[in-house]
Amino acid sequence: MSQASPVSRPLQRLAEVSALPAYRGRRAELLTDFYQLTMMYGYFRAGQQDQRVVFDVFYRTNPCGNGYVIAAGLEQVVWYLSNLRFSDEDIAYLRGLQQFSEDFLDELRRFRFTGSLMAVPEGTVVFPNEPLLRFEGRVFELQLIESAVLSFVNHQSLIATKARRIVEAARTNPVAPDGPVIEMGLRRAQNVDASVFGARAAVIGGCVGTSNVLAGQSFNIPVMGTQAHSWIQNFASELDAFRAYAETFPDNVVLLVDTYDVLRSGVPNAITVAKELAEKGVRLSAIRIDSGDLAYLSKRARRMLDAAGLADVGIVASSDLDEFTIRDLVLQGAQITSWGVGTKLVTSYDCPALGGVYKLAAREVNGVMEPCIKISENASKVTNPGKKKVLRFIVDGYASADLIALDDEAFDPSQPLELFDPVHTYKRKTIEDFTIEPLLQPVFQDGELVYELPPLENIRSRVEAQLKLFSSEILRPVNPHEYHVDLSQRLWDLKQRLLHAQRPAGAPR
Amino acid sequence: MSQASPVSRPLQRLAEVSALPAYRGRRAELLTDFYQLTMMYGYFRAGQQDQRVVFDVFYRTNPCGNGYVIAAGLEQVVWYLSNLRFSDEDIAYLRGLQQFSEDFLDELRRFRFTGSLMAVPEGTVVFPNEPLLRFEGRVFELQLIESAVLSFVNHQSLIATKARRIVEAARTNPVAPDGPVIEMGLRRAQNVDASVFGARAAVIGGCVGTSNVLAGQSFNIPVMGTQAHSWIQNFASELDAFRAYAETFPDNVVLLVDTYDVLRSGVPNAITVAKELAEKGVRLSAIRIDSGDLAYLSKRARRMLDAAGLADVGIVASSDLDEFTIRDLVLQGAQITSWGVGTKLVTSYDCPALGGVYKLAAREVNGVMEPCIKISENASKVTNPGKKKVLRFIVDGYASADLIALDDEAFDPSQPLELFDPVHTYKRKTIEDFTIEPLLQPVFQDGELVYELPPLENIRSRVEAQLKLFSSEILRPVNPHEYHVDLSQRLWDLKQRLLHAQRPAGAPR
Repeated sequence: MSQASPVSRPLQRLAEVSALPAYRGRRAELLTDFYQLTMMYGYFRAGQQDQRVVFDVFYRTNPCGNGYVIAAGLEQVVWYLSNLRFSDEDIAYLRGLQQFSEDFLDELRRFRFTGSLMAVPEGTVVFPNEPLLRFEGRVFELQLIESAVLSFVNHQSLIATKARRIVEAARTNPVAPDGPVIEMGLRRAQNVDASVFGARAAVIGGCVGTSNVLAGQSFNIPVMGTQAHSWIQNFASELDAFRAYAETFPDNVVLLVDTYDVLRSGVPNAITVAKELAEKGVRLSAIRIDSGDLAYLSKRARRMLDAAGLADVGIVASSDLDEFTIRDLVLQGAQITSWGVGTKLVTSYDCPALGGVYKLAAREVNGVMEPCIKISENASKVTNPGKKKVLRFIVDGYASADLIALDDEAFDPSQPLELFDPVHTYKRKTIEDFTIEPLLQPVFQDGELVYELPPLENIRSRVEAQLKLFSSEILRPVNPHEYHVDLSQRLWDLKQRLLHAQRPAGAPR
Repeated sequence: MSQASPVSRPLQRLAEVSALPAYRGRRAELLTDFYQLTMMYGYFRAGQQDQRVVFDVFYRTNPCGNGYVIAAGLEQVVWYLSNLRFSDEDIAYLRGLQQFSEDFLDELRRFRFTGSLMAVPEGTVVFPNEPLLRFEGRVFELQLIESAVLSFVNHQSLIATKARRIVEAARTNPVAPDGPVIEMGLRRAQNVDASVFGARAAVIGGCVGTSNVLAGQSFNIPVMGTQAHSWIQNFASELDAFRAYAETFPDNVVLLVDTYDVLRSGVPNAITVAKELAEKGVRLSAIRIDSGDLAYLSKRARRMLDAAGLADVGIVASSDLDEFTIRDLVLQGAQITSWGVGTKLVTSYDCPALGGVYKLAAREVNGVMEPCIKISENASKVTNPGKKKVLRFIVDGYASADLIALDDEAFDPSQPLELFDPVHTYKRKTIEDFTIEPLLQPVFQDGELVYELPPLENIRSRVEAQLKLFSSEILRPVNPHEYHVDLSQRLWDLKQRLLHAQRPAGAPR
């Protein structure tokens, strides 16, 4: 395919910190649920707007049956928080709703994000119930930002995770273990941002490029593409169409062979053109098959190409691919060397939402920060109270378990540590000779950005490095082994205490 | 719930032609697949850039098992085409890809949309294979726009259709047949545009409002919301939290009753507050239940409210709702009077993509427009050739069938007309005394906008009017009866002729 950079050096065009001003500077102060504004107004009216609170972002269930999630979206959160202010137009709109007082609107006019944020870097492998972002600040501010923050983190983490599943499937291919996966879902994406940030997240998950030029421009991602069926149809013959394309892009000739008949027309014509090109010293890079049975057609096409002395010509496949179809094609010996993945990737078709939530963990009462718990009929929805951190224990180069602990807890790596399952507490294990990786990093401190946004290429590399920490059982795409995420003894005790103390006031037990 | 306008006059705030300049004026010239640019370059190099072509947008399969689709997204297409020009920044980016010549980049710099567009108005009920948009113009222009146009139309039509399914389910509720459905999926939407245009599409499908303030501001949609669990948690008691909220928004008090225990705490406390409010002449509008078994809890809560003389207090339900859960809750006698729907609506969770395509229907050859067909191994993927129109035949106030015909065909309503199934041609019916509704309307003529964009409220009304044309069998949410979409005899003949003529050149039969 024609592309901004060859597949063999796929990420060289990723600039330092990417994203055009159009995306970096985009404002979204009203990208919030209306109840955030009504609550902000309530706190303001009660004189409680400066109360300090802690909110955690976490999710409860891995998407798509996967064993983990790849955290993504933090960069978008950083731009958003950095640009948060209300315009005159916003104030006028809110005034028009006739719900808010003028002094509240004045308070909004002064709005700046002055809070603190600890977050896991993008590209980190994370698990259910782990705080991925921890906000601390004025309730007035932290209430506003919930909805937008969740949308960014939920969306990009979901697509990065789905992309990873697809890339891992492509890596099982003995024909081309490094066969690249290219994101090409723009036309089925859920509107502009889903395609642009979806392409970014796909690269984090391991895709080498995108068909989406706006994503390429915005995030300096390699853009790739060849020709459509309409190009082939718009010439007197398939052969004429192939020749015209090869003349235009002699450096990287990929020919779409399925417009009329792959084996009786497309591949023979591609071979004819390859021979004509060879006389000029030009090489046919690949053929592309976009319909029909990809296992059968790729194997037959491979044989035809090989018989014509074109063993080095690649076969690009696309057509409703996802991780399951790719794995089956590989198992059936399909001779595919690179993969174009659209709809199923960009929408995360079989699991199109990640259920990240934003929950109150602590609140200031009479000047003291007190831990909060949210109880629920559904035991899995009970939250972990207090200001917390997440630690990853590495033993012999592998992640042994993650521990959610209170922020002020310390663990001595020179001493054995007993960990236990927070539900089935009889399940215990003791680890020794571990190193501790704290997952949460400072991003904002009292409104000041203290985090250097890594280039997209580094985020992508982080994913590869992170995944090496986990055993293949945890990375299995279907029915993976469950990774241990435990609570520290102190946090567990606190949770039990609050659970038993928390009873509806005045209600019968 | 607090809302910008009461549910009883839900759409009054929809302005004439909505959308803020931020959305109307947004440019997306690089929102395209890279292969569109390589093909444009190929046509340019071949001196073929001014060739005239016709492209159709249509889809092949109804989403979510539905019997139809509600067309949406045209307004976004109109803004996009109106704003299409390349900035210096775009040109610099494309130059940097080192694939294109300077004279091609100059041609891009001069780019304006000068083509013609016929389209079905937003809110039209449409069926598989019907052209929803028909573009005619220079191949250079029509190639660029494919990807963006598909993304807009696919996304908004999908969400409008999904919203309609949910609204229809809510209308089966004898407790509150007009019980409003409110879109509240921002936090799980696939990024910003998915939430904003998703809210717009949800209103087209019949929702009365959204929680998304940016969508409210952008499209003048009523915004609605109350308080979150964190509000309740952030007071010394649930009762205090309820009182504080009621004080802030006395005009529309909705209380979230499931933070601690719906029946033992939430509802009793809500009743206490309702009695306190009554003394001040204020009415409790509703309680809201966001977890637990909504059938059981709403019935028990209803009895408690009624016993307290609060029969007029509504019950708002939310919690992972979709059309199936709503129908089941209604069947089980749930006492719910309005519905908040999030994730499942805004992502169209069980069918998150509509597969609209953009196919070449005709192309200029030696100055004459010739029909094109795309053949395929898969018979359902064979396209309908030529420049076409779509006619809806109305008999006795009901839509009897749609007919895809060539653009220059005329049908005489005073004569009987025999229609036939385009695949099983022995299936025939003759209609008489019909009126003809042409579905495609002129939108652009030679680059000039000739269409008045209707206000969102009118689009929403159009949906209601359109659905009245179809029998309940076609509107059934599961296994609906298939509506007839036939081809005219002339179009059918043309298709057969091209199908048999179209054989791979030089290949064995």
